[in-house]
Amino acid sequence: MIGRKLVERLSKDAGADLVLHDVVPFESRHKTVVSDLSVPGEAEKLIAARPELIFHLAAIVSGEAEADFDKGYRVNLDGTRRLFEAIRKESAAAGGAYRPRVVFTSSIAVFGAPFPDAIDDEFLNAPLTSYGTQKAIGELLLSDYSRRGFFDGIGIRLPTVCVRPGKPNKAASGFFSGIIREPLAGQEAVLPVSESVRHWFASPRAAVGFLMHAAQLDTTKLGNRRNLSMPGVCATVGDEIEALRKVAGDQAARLIRREPDPLIERIVSGWPQNFDASRALALGFRADSSFEEIIRIHLQDELQKSAPPPKARA
Amino acid sequence: MIGRKLVERLSKDAGADLVLHDVVPFESRHKTVVSDLSVPGEAEKLIAARPELIFHLAAIVSGEAEADFDKGYRVNLDGTRRLFEAIRKESAAAGGAYRPRVVFTSSIAVFGAPFPDAIDDEFLNAPLTSYGTQKAIGELLLSDYSRRGFFDGIGIRLPTVCVRPGKPNKAASGFFSGIIREPLAGQEAVLPVSESVRHWFASPRAAVGFLMHAAQLDTTKLGNRRNLSMPGVCATVGDEIEALRKVAGDQAARLIRREPDPLIERIVSGWPQNFDASRALALGFRADSSFEEIIRIHLQDELQKSAPPPKARA
Repeated sequence: MIGRKLVERLSKDAGADLVLHDVVPFESRHKTVVSDLSVPGEAEKLIAARPELIFHLAAIVSGEAEADFDKGYRVNLDGTRRLFEAIRKESAAAGGAYRPRVVFTSSIAVFGAPFPDAIDDEFLNAPLTSYGTQKAIGELLLSDYSRRGFFDGIGIRLPTVCVRPGKPNKAASGFFSGIIREPLAGQEAVLPVSESVRHWFASPRAAVGFLMHAAQLDTTKLGNRRNLSMPGVCATVGDEIEALRKVAGDQAARLIRREPDPLIERIVSGWPQNFDASRALALGFRADSSFEEIIRIHLQDELQKSAPPPKARA
Repeated sequence: MIGRKLVERLSKDAGADLVLHDVVPFESRHKTVVSDLSVPGEAEKLIAARPELIFHLAAIVSGEAEADFDKGYRVNLDGTRRLFEAIRKESAAAGGAYRPRVVFTSSIAVFGAPFPDAIDDEFLNAPLTSYGTQKAIGELLLSDYSRRGFFDGIGIRLPTVCVRPGKPNKAASGFFSGIIREPLAGQEAVLPVSESVRHWFASPRAAVGFLMHAAQLDTTKLGNRRNLSMPGVCATVGDEIEALRKVAGDQAARLIRREPDPLIERIVSGWPQNFDASRALALGFRADSSFEEIIRIHLQDELQKSAPPPKARA
């Protein structure tokens, strides 16, 4: 989803020569490559054309990496390492003259409870999932390969992206988007946790903005610490509902049905709640201004509505 | 060196059934296995006998891992991962009934400057060497494999071991031991840095004590954070020299020749200086009491002398 939006933005802004890669076939007006990066030799083919800028977004998501240990490590760790190795080899073949920018999407899943009030830029990576472990390893490799001069890397830890467009999914985090998206479409949404649950959010538009900014940043400002927690909006579920009420009225908020789920409560309790993203802010990364703005961006970008939907005006 | 001392201690304490492994042939009265853990299939052979307790000390050291990128990653990362994978497979073959204790020696090289006054248990791993990167990845894998129940792991970050017995070597850290060891043997030692350089030390005896304690620790006390900075002695080079003077007299201290080396000064300036190892202390890990004790341990364990050497009494 972020990848698709990034491509839209890149085509518009730069008119750049894009090559899109995925493991499953897909349609695009740009050049596409379909292969499995975790298979030896595939990453080399992709890097042979010496792209100047590489966005590495691919991953087996959290739930699947937890359910399928081998697949998670194969794709998220081996795939990333093979990509980095292919760049190193191409760089060596070019006598060091090839040194692309690599933008790696990490995740706040590299952090694990217990947390301080706000996770700052010096807090340890102690993930509580295999996905978070694989992302944390990717960050370490990115730093080392950059320090050695094989490429010019930057890793950005995305907040939970909200409001995710599309249909509800089975992700434990799905309700954060669902309780906004479904009511805005006049449909009921289930809330499995209490309103006091606090989390860290960015709109899809802000997330694409982070990636674009990372692509253009003067990385000498990063020193040797090339992985950054992105700024975001800290909000409780209660804050989300209040913002929904402001944007779309009581009627929308009434479509949220409380149905506590102890399993989801437990999973979510281990997630980061708040950050002090000073470094990223100082480097010019910009978050959404409020949860209300996050909802308005969803209306604008997904529903092509800038005003509240009619029903909510009642 | 630590491995050899650990074997002496294990044979004495437990009379346990030991299997020793290395990549190069070696002599021992215990069962030995010589193989390369980074070669597919070798780790499985080693684990087939289902050892209850596994000490994983093996590594390409810092300087070599920096000089030979491929070898460092192959041995320190792939070797460690293959060992962990072999245990996971053996555990699965035993229906989960096989779940050994794994003691992994990590290193304070997982930390990189800039540092706070004392590195606490929540400070980030931002290594500035490939060796430190490989150790940090080992720590992440150890945590995840333990969390998933494949084994019961604990990673301990050793301080710089001092006084290292044996001959001077080319390691950038060699002088920390050399300025004690050589004068105690009546020989001149070169000091390439200023006396204000501060670092974090443990005697070989304390290091073996950490490994033994880690092997026996109730790991439920660790929660999900299974990697620990070990307590140590924080001392400047000036403190080292003062301790040498106290133990062995002015004559010994006069054998230290100042010969500043800007390269070594620069390397050492990126190393940790001081720790707040509260967690490890609370879990019962014990450091040497002072740098003087570190010197006395060297005299006792290596030179079989409990009193200062005669020359130093003058």
